[in-house]
Amino acid sequence: MKPLMFALPGNGELTARLATRLDAEIGELESRYFPDRETYVRLATEVRDRSVVLVCTLDRPDEKTLRLLFAADAARDLGAARVGLVAPYLGYMRQDKRFQSGEAVSSSSYAKMLSASLDWMVTIDPHLHRRSSMAEIYSITVTVCHASPKLSGWISQHVADPIIIGPDSESRQWVSAVASAVGAPFATLDKTRHGDRDVEIRLPNMERWRGRQPVLVDDIISSGRTMEAAITQLVALGFSRPIIIGVHGLFAEDAFERLQAAGALQIVTTTSVPHPSNQIDISDVLQSAVSDLTSAPTGKS
Amino acid sequence: MKPLMFALPGNGELTARLATRLDAEIGELESRYFPDRETYVRLATEVRDRSVVLVCTLDRPDEKTLRLLFAADAARDLGAARVGLVAPYLGYMRQDKRFQSGEAVSSSSYAKMLSASLDWMVTIDPHLHRRSSMAEIYSITVTVCHASPKLSGWISQHVADPIIIGPDSESRQWVSAVASAVGAPFATLDKTRHGDRDVEIRLPNMERWRGRQPVLVDDIISSGRTMEAAITQLVALGFSRPIIIGVHGLFAEDAFERLQAAGALQIVTTTSVPHPSNQIDISDVLQSAVSDLTSAPTGKS
Repeated sequence: MKPLMFALPGNGELTARLATRLDAEIGELESRYFPDRETYVRLATEVRDRSVVLVCTLDRPDEKTLRLLFAADAARDLGAARVGLVAPYLGYMRQDKRFQSGEAVSSSSYAKMLSASLDWMVTIDPHLHRRSSMAEIYSITVTVCHASPKLSGWISQHVADPIIIGPDSESRQWVSAVASAVGAPFATLDKTRHGDRDVEIRLPNMERWRGRQPVLVDDIISSGRTMEAAITQLVALGFSRPIIIGVHGLFAEDAFERLQAAGALQIVTTTSVPHPSNQIDISDVLQSAVSDLTSAPTGKS
Repeated sequence: MKPLMFALPGNGELTARLATRLDAEIGELESRYFPDRETYVRLATEVRDRSVVLVCTLDRPDEKTLRLLFAADAARDLGAARVGLVAPYLGYMRQDKRFQSGEAVSSSSYAKMLSASLDWMVTIDPHLHRRSSMAEIYSITVTVCHASPKLSGWISQHVADPIIIGPDSESRQWVSAVASAVGAPFATLDKTRHGDRDVEIRLPNMERWRGRQPVLVDDIISSGRTMEAAITQLVALGFSRPIIIGVHGLFAEDAFERLQAAGALQIVTTTSVPHPSNQIDISDVLQSAVSDLTSAPTGKS
């Protein structure tokens, strides 16, 4: 039987693209709030013995998580063979240790919560900072897909003579892979974070790349402070206005408007988090991972 | 050692009253949103080997639950002896079965979530409709406290010659207990629910109670539609404007304003859900249950 996909609210477009690629059926999920602001969820398509795929990107997770877990529990309870989640952006990956005593390590709590209701998850470039693998926190099967080839592809198609610039030394390997596929040079910023909204960055010596089009790339654009500072400094050095590319465009608060105001030539993101800046479809990046997981034997052989 | 209590945002007043009654210490809980709308939680008071009590009423639960579970997980992770929750109002108790095929039974999912992070819970008059006990859905120790004696007390002190009116036949036993403690007669409405916002009610024959002050009581005032219809009908019959008393005043959407507009003489709730209508402190109702659970042996005897 074909996999059965359900789009959580806001995920309809990606679900449709992915369903076409996978030859999957799209089920009907009803969701609303009761007047007291509790969430109602109904899977209006029969799930019994089906391989169920929920699609829910997890930016701004507090308002999405209960709804998602109710849907997952309902699918399992109603006899689905397997219940998986496609979360192109996976939230709660950044608080992965105690920076101060007493802090909640939300990445672990959140992983426990999702793991309790799902059989598997597919995500794109999760923010693995101090962790080396998802298996350290998720007890379910997690397949990580990579958007870097899509970023390289977009840059190759749209930018002549780019210089690719990554946000910090930790991103070096990732940025170098993007640049190498484009056949372009790359650099990384020196970044010092003083607080949620206070980031100090320093450009490396850029002289030898004068005349090239700066392309700033990052996995997550959240506050956009790093990008904003980099744009200002590049423009002050006489470079062309930079192109900004993010895998996951969260654009916290007024980040998008600030990046535009700072002088970004163009702001481009993948379809991981729906936003007007989306130009890079990532359904093909997810396709084979989801295909593998939905065709896995269910133990009944 | 004294129990260590933490107030989740909005629960400071009840926590302070309860801590005084229990001779408990109040710890410092920091909480905020990161710019990307993920929740940050820190227990700034040492919890190691302490009996930790989190206080968090669970109306509008979607925005509160992750924060609460992060705090609970942090306490446990940091070595608390036990971690309990005082939730005067417990959300997600109403969807306790599938009314239509495919519906998520959120009361079970929610119970699973809370049970995974807590050792015990104390709540007041949870909406047990089709379930006979909390143990059917919660795998942790749950102590249920009752606010009806407090309602009776308030009515005795403030209302001469009341007639107590309950919302439906199911509330008969509860309403009769409230009325009997007051030494007043009681009646119940006939209620037919057509949808979230559409309720048809019928008053019983009220002739013999003419001249008495109607007091409408209910466990939860959510949309307030039942109360609103009852007020209108009582006033049309020539009764005095009714007093409205609810244990849990959720006041969904504009319910409070509608009840006032319909002609409520006074709207009174307990401190279970903070609201300007709160007049009945329920910290004493919670006291002995919380005291028992925080002094329970931790297995180290």
